[in-house]
Amino acid sequence: MKHPYNLQLDALKSAYANHAFSPRELIQALRERALQLNPEYKLFIHILTEEELAPYLANLEATGPESLPLYGVPFAVKDNIDLAGVPTTAACHAFSYIPAKNATIVAQLIALGAIPIGKTNLDQFATGLNGTRSPYGLCRNSVLAEYPSGGSSAGSALAVALGLASFALGTDTAGSGRVPAALNNLIGLKATKGLISTAGVVPACRTLDCTTFFTATALEASKLLALTARKDPEDEYSRANVGWNTGRSFGIPASGFKFGVPKQLEFLGCAESQALFERSVSTLETMGGIAIEIDFSAFLEAAKLLYEGPWVAERYSVVGELIENNPEAVLPVIRDVLQKAPTATAVQAFRAQYKLQALKVKTDAILANLDFMITPAYPRPVTLAELAAEPVKRNSDLGTYTNFMNLLDYAAVAVPAGFMRNGLPSGVTLFGRAFCDQYLLSIADSFQRTSKLPLIGQFEFTAAPPTTLAKNDRSQLLVCG
Amino acid sequence: MKHPYNLQLDALKSAYANHAFSPRELIQALRERALQLNPEYKLFIHILTEEELAPYLANLEATGPESLPLYGVPFAVKDNIDLAGVPTTAACHAFSYIPAKNATIVAQLIALGAIPIGKTNLDQFATGLNGTRSPYGLCRNSVLAEYPSGGSSAGSALAVALGLASFALGTDTAGSGRVPAALNNLIGLKATKGLISTAGVVPACRTLDCTTFFTATALEASKLLALTARKDPEDEYSRANVGWNTGRSFGIPASGFKFGVPKQLEFLGCAESQALFERSVSTLETMGGIAIEIDFSAFLEAAKLLYEGPWVAERYSVVGELIENNPEAVLPVIRDVLQKAPTATAVQAFRAQYKLQALKVKTDAILANLDFMITPAYPRPVTLAELAAEPVKRNSDLGTYTNFMNLLDYAAVAVPAGFMRNGLPSGVTLFGRAFCDQYLLSIADSFQRTSKLPLIGQFEFTAAPPTTLAKNDRSQLLVCG
Repeated sequence: MKHPYNLQLDALKSAYANHAFSPRELIQALRERALQLNPEYKLFIHILTEEELAPYLANLEATGPESLPLYGVPFAVKDNIDLAGVPTTAACHAFSYIPAKNATIVAQLIALGAIPIGKTNLDQFATGLNGTRSPYGLCRNSVLAEYPSGGSSAGSALAVALGLASFALGTDTAGSGRVPAALNNLIGLKATKGLISTAGVVPACRTLDCTTFFTATALEASKLLALTARKDPEDEYSRANVGWNTGRSFGIPASGFKFGVPKQLEFLGCAESQALFERSVSTLETMGGIAIEIDFSAFLEAAKLLYEGPWVAERYSVVGELIENNPEAVLPVIRDVLQKAPTATAVQAFRAQYKLQALKVKTDAILANLDFMITPAYPRPVTLAELAAEPVKRNSDLGTYTNFMNLLDYAAVAVPAGFMRNGLPSGVTLFGRAFCDQYLLSIADSFQRTSKLPLIGQFEFTAAPPTTLAKNDRSQLLVCG
Repeated sequence: MKHPYNLQLDALKSAYANHAFSPRELIQALRERALQLNPEYKLFIHILTEEELAPYLANLEATGPESLPLYGVPFAVKDNIDLAGVPTTAACHAFSYIPAKNATIVAQLIALGAIPIGKTNLDQFATGLNGTRSPYGLCRNSVLAEYPSGGSSAGSALAVALGLASFALGTDTAGSGRVPAALNNLIGLKATKGLISTAGVVPACRTLDCTTFFTATALEASKLLALTARKDPEDEYSRANVGWNTGRSFGIPASGFKFGVPKQLEFLGCAESQALFERSVSTLETMGGIAIEIDFSAFLEAAKLLYEGPWVAERYSVVGELIENNPEAVLPVIRDVLQKAPTATAVQAFRAQYKLQALKVKTDAILANLDFMITPAYPRPVTLAELAAEPVKRNSDLGTYTNFMNLLDYAAVAVPAGFMRNGLPSGVTLFGRAFCDQYLLSIADSFQRTSKLPLIGQFEFTAAPPTTLAKNDRSQLLVCG
């Protein structure tokens, strides 16, 4: 679908500089388009009213387009992230509350000039990877009506894919910031845990939750990360960024980088998904990368811990009281996921943590010899009909390559990887050691430029490629060793 | 008590270089002395037989004193740490097993030339801070018979204090490497979690356990740490050391260092303990330090989590099966400590971890402005009679200043701080950020030299003071921006 506006950050900057339109005109047009599209896509739980938008626009009109790095940039907010004065529902009406305060990341973005346009639909309590587990309606895919948007950050991905926002905030505990990116031709940045504040975000698993960005390009995700990665005193799990992972580390990857490819690849019988993945590996090789086959079993074993192990107790610690007092308020599928949590013991929780730590020693050792890893975003896409028939199994399938990521403390970026013959977008995930986000984004940027795949809205790259070399922790070793 | 041998590392090195005696002669003499003292002090669960000692002596006799850094240095091993071929009991006969392999730290020390002389008594399963909770007998204090040795590394502290070993290995989860040091005029180094391997150590709380050193001087602890701090692939919780924390960082502390002193100090009515602590603060000021009063409440709140919170489930995960199948095998006081563990839920475990993380944000912020903190080692000493009357309460009192340390991931050193009028040794604890061990030891070394307190065995310092400046993470910041 051709979008009426090119909302990429640099395109928008030029448009404002050339007075092509004002933020007020753009936001009004996007709001009308959102109201028009929402009955079909169910992407918004709340679209900001003109009254609610007024103060943001008034603030911008008091300054000029050159003064703020995100001046007049429209963004959508997943509805488990607080926007002051507007309900946070987490897709559960009985849970909903009106926050007095913005989440830290929302406050940062507004301070930088960005404009929130709406609160987006999600799998209830961010528990799901498909986008259909919401009483506010099922989120269909942005391209094909018979597929889901992916979840849990379903509406956020759609807001960007449908040309209603330059970027959107999601969250990611098990893959919620990556699966919907892949299904909608987007970049999904799940940065290193703690780099983007989760203060003001409804927890799923508080020790694992990440706030994420959906964008059309890796370049934009790099800019947003560089602008917002800060240690937040209001988030106990916040971490300070490191010197080799700032915006200046984004660049062209030096040739000869080593990337891991799982020996064990699962496409659940989908030859097309396999072919698209193999083409992505070839693209990385074209870029000068060296593919190294690695044993993926420890990653897959860690993935199992997320829902089969005691980490469901973290989710229960948020939703448990509501389930106990008012079970009907929570979707049956979410209740089912959490049913084992109340009986899990602290002994089991610690033993699972030991097991995870043992697996992390193995996976860290594998990553130590690589610059990053590539996997499919998911084995194969699932249709809405398949999801309706087997809601838990099909959802689990989508998490094959995502569930281990936050448990093992790795950074990840979902990157568009072409289209199925039916037109459905496909994606791969690049991941690596914590605090290598800007390096992963550099690879993703180069990948997007090399593969020359059409961006959302059929737009092309409008920004020049970087001119400096990309850096990661290994570059740091060479410099400071 | 005057010792027959000065077993300090450098004294021993000179003695061997001068052929004053051979390792064989020394070990034989120490063995006889150990057999003589053990009926009174109950410090050893097992004293190595001449047969068991033979291979270690034979190995040394194949080399020379200059070839190995710990050539012929006798050391004692807490009996929850594996020494191949000799039972590991953890002070519980029913639990005992004969390991085929040395614990990593034991293997390292033997490879460096040190000679294990025996397995030392402890509070059962390292659960206790007093040294009386053992079916292998109660460990009295090295100086005064009416006081305990302190625990849980009771026999290890005694082995050094009684002149039977140059150093001893202990463990420390809640203070077990620090309380017995203070009560016996020793340095107790509880290094940063993960710096000294715990592979081959019976876990207490596996996420918190540390292997520790008891020595007469901080200088010796610095040497031992520098020789053994390595990332161990066999210990999942092992961590690599950092550049500013090697043996080269041990030195003279630059004047103007800032140290925190708790506003809330508890001496449980013991004016003598208070006076000794105040004198220690004055000593640090004499050394050029600047005392800064800090709010200690977050540290004290974290301390409560260790036994009142779900971390007892970690202990239960080791001992629980034995308690269930054979309750009589475990001391009643240990069973009591663990009784709440089986009912603790995973939800409680995660919530306690959130609470700890929130407290750590507060305590980290306090430490960020300091080079280190000083506290008493314990509020006041307790007598054996008091312990017998109120075993749990008096034990808890001893942990007032120790229980928070590993939960908050800090490094700590117990340092001798003078003597009560009755002759009982007293101690303080210096602690600070992870990976500042060598800096803390530098402060401890300077403290020992400045305070001029008699060492164990009435020996004096035989090593010259360092000539370079001590370094910590702050020095690193200055150097590398």
